[in-house]
Amino acid sequence: MSAYVGKYTTDFRHLYVGRTEAVLRPRTVEEVQLVVRILAKHGVPLVPQGGNTSYCTAATPNVDGTEVVVSLERLNKVREIDVGNMSMTADAGCILSALHDAASDVDLMLPLSLGSQQSCQIGGNLSTNAGGIAVVKYGMARDLVLGLEVVLPDGTLFSDLNSLRKNNSGYDVKQLFIGGEGTLGIITGASLKLARKPKATVTAFLAISDIADLSILLDRAQRFTGDAVTSFEYVSNNSLQLLLGKKPDLRHPLEQTSGHYVLLEASTSSHVLDLQGAVDALLEEAMGEDLVTDGTIASNEEQRNAFWHLRESIPEGEVLNGGSLKHDVSVRTSRLATFIEEASRIVKANSPEAILSVYGHVGDGNVHFNVVPPAGTGSVEFKAQFEGSVSPLIYRLTAEMGGSFSAEYGIGRVKLDLLATYGDPGKVALMKTLKKALDPGGHMNPGKVVAGDDRPHL
Amino acid sequence: MSAYVGKYTTDFRHLYVGRTEAVLRPRTVEEVQLVVRILAKHGVPLVPQGGNTSYCTAATPNVDGTEVVVSLERLNKVREIDVGNMSMTADAGCILSALHDAASDVDLMLPLSLGSQQSCQIGGNLSTNAGGIAVVKYGMARDLVLGLEVVLPDGTLFSDLNSLRKNNSGYDVKQLFIGGEGTLGIITGASLKLARKPKATVTAFLAISDIADLSILLDRAQRFTGDAVTSFEYVSNNSLQLLLGKKPDLRHPLEQTSGHYVLLEASTSSHVLDLQGAVDALLEEAMGEDLVTDGTIASNEEQRNAFWHLRESIPEGEVLNGGSLKHDVSVRTSRLATFIEEASRIVKANSPEAILSVYGHVGDGNVHFNVVPPAGTGSVEFKAQFEGSVSPLIYRLTAEMGGSFSAEYGIGRVKLDLLATYGDPGKVALMKTLKKALDPGGHMNPGKVVAGDDRPHL
Ligand SMILES: Cc1cc2nc3c(=O)[nH]c(=O)nc-3n(C[C@H](O)[C@H](O)[C@H](O)COP(=O)(O)OP(=O)(O)OC[C@H]3O[C@@H](n4cnc5c(N)ncnc54)[C@H](O)[C@@H]3O)c2cc1C
Ligand SMILES: Cc1cc2nc3c(=O)[nH]c(=O)nc-3n(C[C@H](O)[C@H](O)[C@H](O)COP(=O)(O)OP(=O)(O)OC[C@H]3O[C@@H](n4cnc5c(N)ncnc54)[C@H](O)[C@@H]3O)c2cc1C
Repeated sequence: MSAYVGKYTTDFRHLYVGRTEAVLRPRTVEEVQLVVRILAKHGVPLVPQGGNTSYCTAATPNVDGTEVVVSLERLNKVREIDVGNMSMTADAGCILSALHDAASDVDLMLPLSLGSQQSCQIGGNLSTNAGGIAVVKYGMARDLVLGLEVVLPDGTLFSDLNSLRKNNSGYDVKQLFIGGEGTLGIITGASLKLARKPKATVTAFLAISDIADLSILLDRAQRFTGDAVTSFEYVSNNSLQLLLGKKPDLRHPLEQTSGHYVLLEASTSSHVLDLQGAVDALLEEAMGEDLVTDGTIASNEEQRNAFWHLRESIPEGEVLNGGSLKHDVSVRTSRLATFIEEASRIVKANSPEAILSVYGHVGDGNVHFNVVPPAGTGSVEFKAQFEGSVSPLIYRLTAEMGGSFSAEYGIGRVKLDLLATYGDPGKVALMKTLKKALDPGGHMNPGKVVAGDDRPHL
Repeated sequence: MSAYVGKYTTDFRHLYVGRTEAVLRPRTVEEVQLVVRILAKHGVPLVPQGGNTSYCTAATPNVDGTEVVVSLERLNKVREIDVGNMSMTADAGCILSALHDAASDVDLMLPLSLGSQQSCQIGGNLSTNAGGIAVVKYGMARDLVLGLEVVLPDGTLFSDLNSLRKNNSGYDVKQLFIGGEGTLGIITGASLKLARKPKATVTAFLAISDIADLSILLDRAQRFTGDAVTSFEYVSNNSLQLLLGKKPDLRHPLEQTSGHYVLLEASTSSHVLDLQGAVDALLEEAMGEDLVTDGTIASNEEQRNAFWHLRESIPEGEVLNGGSLKHDVSVRTSRLATFIEEASRIVKANSPEAILSVYGHVGDGNVHFNVVPPAGTGSVEFKAQFEGSVSPLIYRLTAEMGGSFSAEYGIGRVKLDLLATYGDPGKVALMKTLKKALDPGGHMNPGKVVAGDDRPHL
């Protein structure tokens, strides 16, 4: 069993190594209910686990080995696709990319797209309310949910899989489990909205010289394309250089370097509207005004993939440079530039040797404000030092600017302190009330999201 | 005071006449907190009230006069509009149409649109998760919420008004109050997404001969316009004739009558994409295939208003014919036609004299399957008779087809029995748990949404 235990007890980023006596892998919803009931009866805490790609070590058991892992990986069937209703119902353990394929087979798509899609599960995506690269058009994971099926902490079932687009019959209780990080119940199935596949997709890699132009460009792009922008990803020159420096096989898409880049993608399900023409017109105007200083539009799928490959390799570039300390924050899109400038100033003033790697889904106000250790430094020590001294200043700035200290990744166990410091006290109190009401025994993923005196004493 | 009491104690449809000793109208959030705290201390139940246009008598006090009405009407300031962030923060008591105007003043729009917009309040819209005529593009009221401010049943404040598009910092507790019908707290403020104003809008009034073509047409329209359909409203010939028969000044937009009509509207914020051309191409193809048998596109704003006036007068047409018994149901869009046909058969078999008036926001699977008393019948007796004998058959069919007995209007006090019969037991149990946890005293809008033994005994 110890081989299993490694995979199930260590998170993707190796931030946390837990232990467990047992990994349970139920095959049916009834088995999940049985498992939960038995564990509850004996007061044994459990950790629901999907693909275990969480960035907050939310899916790993504790070090003391007292928690049982309940992996959903065997609960992995697509239950139904209703093409006319543009909906899909699937087991929670389905791998996200498998659901992409299933939707694609009926000429539709599931528009949730993230770097971990080959290993994360839809149950994990919903439990973390995952974001990704298409939020600007399709919303977060939450926005794709028509219904959920959940095994509650006492083993009873809540089921709401009718795939309706409109249903005001009582409190929308399913919302609590979306982004609940497995602390309120185990999601066993979900009914999801599908979207029409694009008939045209236009992908551009653009350079801008002034970060303040980011949100102007976003607005302009939405106006030209009729809100057809699917992705609006920011990449700082630093992030790109870190990557290109370590991966000489990768090519810079533009002739000259610039301070800032945007990977812009727009798509439409229409075969008659001229989206390409709209993007051309946008770029003509934007370049005429120096809003965009340089740019290139992918002329084929290969080029498009190359642009995306660059964007998606940015985290790898950080890893190759010693790994990054991540600050996954969000602010209003109107405050993006100010935030990035201010936060950069803080880093320069307090840790002049630190290398900034700033990028992210800025179409949603989400900035990955990451920091890479200077070449030659011990990365572990640098990060620990930075985390203790400068990170708090970044989070304080975020809070002062009305932003969030966790845009995408959730709380897990690593952001409990931030929640205590920056969460609205009314919200934190409500969260505790809800946790206590739904999981009075406190054995559903204890020590995550809701901290403190509610942890079970074993 | 008795003049006031009439307005505050009777619902819009005059289904329920309550009584109250006091109508409190706080001017500030602090006053709301004070009021709630004092009432809680003395165990006095209260009813939050917005525009009191609820279709489920959810905002009226009980007949016994023991409940105090807390009207939000004086809490009616727009707090902030952030144009760059496309967001607006407003007091809960703002009239919906006032918020439309405020958004329009900065060249944006709040895309929530319903017949009652001149009198309903945003707090009421959120508390009912209102729908309306633009859900197919912009979603329900829930989908427009970036943040809420809520006075909880003990008078404490939950506040989350940072207007962020992405924020995964703990349970999304605000969701509980959206559609909570005032039973879990009083919404005092909200932060809302705004949308870009359309640069082009195309409105068409179309005839179809076979109801089964409804969802085919919807899909086709989305494909041609690139998902730019804003409204897809169904009007049955019966509904139109009921209206035209009583309002001879209104004009039928088409030369010939047909069994079924669709009011289709598409819009785009783009000034370069040819939406009109896309709709023309759609209609050419659809008419070539007899999917659409007749149709006309509004050539100016006046014609567009005339189409909408017809659609929005349908409820008035019912009133002029003795009023309707409403079944506000939803099914999957793929089952719309079957549902309407089956339900119509049930009515014909069990109440042959009843006049059907079927229309609704079918782009979301939402059908107003209404029944009007035959001319010359006592409408009250007819409705009571129908409600006791045939309505249950319609709701049973809805449930058997996986639909909802309340698509838009909520539960209030009038759909408690339906919730008990057709609600998922796991969901109903969860609702009770949540009500008890958040409002242990049971004094927030008692007797609505969550029924039964949780009512306070006074
Ligand atoms: C390379 C890479 C790129 C990434 N990119 C993004 C990104 O762009 N956007 C983003 O949001 N995230 C991203 N992530 C983070 C991560 O992939 C997401 O959070 C993902 O949604 C987690 O899914 P999972 O199945 O791996 O969940 P896990 O890590 O297994 O679990 C996450 C949380 O959900 C709970 N959980 C899992 N399954 C269930 C269930 N069925 N019922 C109840 N609770 C459950 C767990 O207990 C845990 O609390 C990325 C991660 C990697 C490694
Ligand atoms: C002509 C007409 C057309 C309509 N069309 C539609 C339609 O297309 N779609 C649709 O969904 N509805 C429609 N409705 C129903 C109704 O207008 C909506 O439900 C509306 O959202 C109610 O808003 P209100 O301010 O009038 O709320 P109220 O009727 O005052 O209250 C509704 C519920 O919310 C609670 N509440 C009100 N304000 C607050 C607050 N600040 N905090 C907490 N709880 C609160 C009340 O206690 C009650 O439970 C229509 C009604 C009419 C009369």
